[in-house]
Amino acid sequence: MSGSVRVVVDAMGGDHAPQVPVRGAIDALKESGDIYICLAGVKETIEKELDKYEYPKDRLEIVPASQIIETAEPPVMAIRSKKDSSIVVGQTMVRKQEADAFVSSGSTGAVLVGGQVIVGRIKGVERAPLAPLIPTARGMSLLIDCGANVDARPSHLVQFAKMGSIYMENIVGVDKPRVGIVNIGAEEEKGNALVKETFPLLKECTDLNFTGSIEAREIPAGAADVVVCEAFVGNVILKLYEGVGATLISKIKESMMSSLRTKMGAMLVKPALKDTLRSFDISRHGGAPLLGLKGLVVKTHGSASATEIKNAIFQCRQFKEQEIAEKIKENFAV
Amino acid sequence: MSGSVRVVVDAMGGDHAPQVPVRGAIDALKESGDIYICLAGVKETIEKELDKYEYPKDRLEIVPASQIIETAEPPVMAIRSKKDSSIVVGQTMVRKQEADAFVSSGSTGAVLVGGQVIVGRIKGVERAPLAPLIPTARGMSLLIDCGANVDARPSHLVQFAKMGSIYMENIVGVDKPRVGIVNIGAEEEKGNALVKETFPLLKECTDLNFTGSIEAREIPAGAADVVVCEAFVGNVILKLYEGVGATLISKIKESMMSSLRTKMGAMLVKPALKDTLRSFDISRHGGAPLLGLKGLVVKTHGSASATEIKNAIFQCRQFKEQEIAEKIKENFAV
Repeated sequence: MSGSVRVVVDAMGGDHAPQVPVRGAIDALKESGDIYICLAGVKETIEKELDKYEYPKDRLEIVPASQIIETAEPPVMAIRSKKDSSIVVGQTMVRKQEADAFVSSGSTGAVLVGGQVIVGRIKGVERAPLAPLIPTARGMSLLIDCGANVDARPSHLVQFAKMGSIYMENIVGVDKPRVGIVNIGAEEEKGNALVKETFPLLKECTDLNFTGSIEAREIPAGAADVVVCEAFVGNVILKLYEGVGATLISKIKESMMSSLRTKMGAMLVKPALKDTLRSFDISRHGGAPLLGLKGLVVKTHGSASATEIKNAIFQCRQFKEQEIAEKIKENFAV
Repeated sequence: MSGSVRVVVDAMGGDHAPQVPVRGAIDALKESGDIYICLAGVKETIEKELDKYEYPKDRLEIVPASQIIETAEPPVMAIRSKKDSSIVVGQTMVRKQEADAFVSSGSTGAVLVGGQVIVGRIKGVERAPLAPLIPTARGMSLLIDCGANVDARPSHLVQFAKMGSIYMENIVGVDKPRVGIVNIGAEEEKGNALVKETFPLLKECTDLNFTGSIEAREIPAGAADVVVCEAFVGNVILKLYEGVGATLISKIKESMMSSLRTKMGAMLVKPALKDTLRSFDISRHGGAPLLGLKGLVVKTHGSASATEIKNAIFQCRQFKEQEIAEKIKENFAV
């Protein structure tokens, strides 16, 4: 099994479960011979869904889990009480090293809590940040942290910068990733208490390519490869990215349907425009890793498509091949 | 002079001073007979610019100010040391009630500091928030606070909600403005320490139409009329709004110029598309008021157009007519 990767996919998580996660898993299996999938969830439901497909049966197994954690459930309670849920069962396999990674479109809160308490943090890592890739004019940047760990301390942000750099260098292939801290002005003396305390600490890190403050305006232009912020701000950035994009695109579509003239024009520009808008669609980029854990946990959108699930599975393979967890471990060894 | 408004315009502030502020002031004068303008700045420079125009000379005067505060100067120091700058001279006129309002495209920091220390806060107002109108799918929302007062306390946010509601009701004409607090989830128990403490305080305010948490994703859709947040988050929202919009629009333009076919299509959709994009351009909406001061201070973009300056001047008239400062004063009377 050397060179291969074993990924547990949460078959019960997301708006279109089990159809979408099952489809994404099968697409990944068919596209790549070194992937092994465990589908965690209600056995009968998964079997019924699998019946629709032809697939390499020797590389897929069902891991039974009878319970389902709903999005609205308080995460800590859900993880504690639903021991036979797909999220708990799947993450336990990662902790026991029976699988390399866990991919879920289910409750973000439960996946994050499970990552910390079931899979567990690498020694020395104070917090495990959720770090999605976001599209920019230059390609992709890593936004770290967008998780549930609000009210971070400066030392957390420094760790985010380090883990983000390792990820961008080894997974995305960016040489000396530029690290910027989200701030409300470019000058060192600007910012809130957290940013002012973190700034000099980042400057001291000789292993980082710290380029200073980055204003939110510059993020979509791709002014930093690793965009460091605490989770509340990161969450606002991620969701506003989606919101502004969606509203603007719907307004553009509306204006293109406003007259016969514009409708004719729309027919001509549509194919090119569609590609452009797709490249800037934040929800298309295969899931966000929870970094700093002993195994990999990837959170995909609740509304993720089968392609996003498939890409998340491929990300798990790359994560294992590049030994990201080991590199973080070395970096944080005390 | 009853019914009229007297506005000091900073003739030296912004990327295109004195041309743009002078032009904006003259346009306002010509369009409305009840506006009186004082142009603050270097006398000879302003005179030379005024020579280009025909305008109602009885409603415009020059207020000499020999110094200029540059954008890069530390604001507190600049306000203290440059007593004869257009920003200090203009705001001093507002404090002395020689003018109703001050409009500037100059240094944001200096304008904000000057507002607090020169014009001064209304009794009971703990902090003066900067509150720009932002475009949404439903019209406009007020984003409060985007200023320089980071690390706010819950009581500040409650005051922002109240001042914002008064503004939206009386200036924008929204009946019972919906107040939302920016959060990372819809549930009351979510959020950082600041939001969790502020939430119950807002719920207690019977004079507010508090609708709960608002996720950043919902802001562009217009899910709240008054979007309450502390300044760091507000600044990130405002600038990301600009950034995502600008990047997306430049990508769309690029894709439309990619082939002969798309170029032909672009010609047909261009006029309608231009109107749409303009309606969503955050920089076109006439300046952001600094609320809670004894007089009005309006900050316009450094790159503001003459139309933005003109609209900011009209906003000053409405602010006076609707007695916003008096309404805030009543609301905050202890």
